[in-house]
Amino acid sequence: MDTSVTDHLLSTTRAVRRKLDLDRPVEPEVLDECLRLALQAPTPGNQQAWRWLVVRDQEVKDRLSELFRRVGKAYLEANAAALGEAITEPSVARAFASGQHLIDVIDRVPVFVIPCLTGRPSGDNATDAAFYGGIFPAVWNFQLALRSRGLGSTLTTYHLTHEAEAAEILGIPSDVTQVGLLPVAYTTVPDFKPAARVPLSEVAYLDGWGNALS
Amino acid sequence: MDTSVTDHLLSTTRAVRRKLDLDRPVEPEVLDECLRLALQAPTPGNQQAWRWLVVRDQEVKDRLSELFRRVGKAYLEANAAALGEAITEPSVARAFASGQHLIDVIDRVPVFVIPCLTGRPSGDNATDAAFYGGIFPAVWNFQLALRSRGLGSTLTTYHLTHEAEAAEILGIPSDVTQVGLLPVAYTTVPDFKPAARVPLSEVAYLDGWGNALS
Repeated sequence: MDTSVTDHLLSTTRAVRRKLDLDRPVEPEVLDECLRLALQAPTPGNQQAWRWLVVRDQEVKDRLSELFRRVGKAYLEANAAALGEAITEPSVARAFASGQHLIDVIDRVPVFVIPCLTGRPSGDNATDAAFYGGIFPAVWNFQLALRSRGLGSTLTTYHLTHEAEAAEILGIPSDVTQVGLLPVAYTTVPDFKPAARVPLSEVAYLDGWGNALS
Repeated sequence: MDTSVTDHLLSTTRAVRRKLDLDRPVEPEVLDECLRLALQAPTPGNQQAWRWLVVRDQEVKDRLSELFRRVGKAYLEANAAALGEAITEPSVARAFASGQHLIDVIDRVPVFVIPCLTGRPSGDNATDAAFYGGIFPAVWNFQLALRSRGLGSTLTTYHLTHEAEAAEILGIPSDVTQVGLLPVAYTTVPDFKPAARVPLSEVAYLDGWGNALS
């Protein structure tokens, strides 16, 4: 496999908020291709217990955006208060502006995709790791597929605070779990850079916690 | 981006169990590259709250394998009993043989990788979706990076039933959550096929539960 191509995909698929093109329509065919690639991720026991809500209707987007903003605004305000002066630090300021921008324009993003799982989490890590691990690889496959076609997205979870209200808006049965909301659009720039990351040596250990990897 | 290359990666990264090469060593450099690509996945608030345990020591692998087998055997036996006659159906029989094989050889897989998150899940989907959504995209990025380099893996969660025992073996602090165990090895075949999947129309809906996507 040509790792120059695949490494580029895996290292430059960023959380896109400010560079979402709000005016360019997203063709159903492109979204279908990306969803089909999402479904290629493995699931525990090959259950394929996922469901995908694609939202294009403006009224439905407006109602979900209201839930999204309600939680998002409070979250950003609380974080800003907690950060105090530190919020002027360039990378923090950029992250805040990016989060604020998405809250401002969320209702104008062409498509929302809401990944769901049949069943509810148990509250116990031994089973919930498999539960959430049964959908997030597919979600990330979907986001990578979007990126390869010039689209961007970001995993958001604000609206889950009001998951039952969102379920009512969308007609989702009560035994089905929503795990996020992905705003999806073409991006306004053709490419992205790898992210700045803490060195691998600080987050990876060999054979026991804290042992140097190499 | 060359989607013939990226689509191939995204559609053929399977859960590998029977085609793991137990005899070929995995170079630390290759694993480091794949872990660096894992770290390029987005995390909520860019927290990078992940930690990665790479296990190569045979004694540590043996102790973890014991936990893995204890739960895996019971799980397969319970499933076999529940399935009854249906277990002879070819695709089901294959899945069972594959699961059984991994239980048999788990201690001989060259490397285990255990992805962890600092903090514990809350038991509430509104926060846990973000918690688990903060690591599984990175785990899948890692698995895709392995695949692009001729290695295979599968996300397992059996040992999490005995997470505290595993934490003791590895020296993992009690406020850190293990989310799985990935057996990692080169694969004995050069390529894989896309998986058979239910049609997209059965699992994806437009604007409301049950509405046809197109």
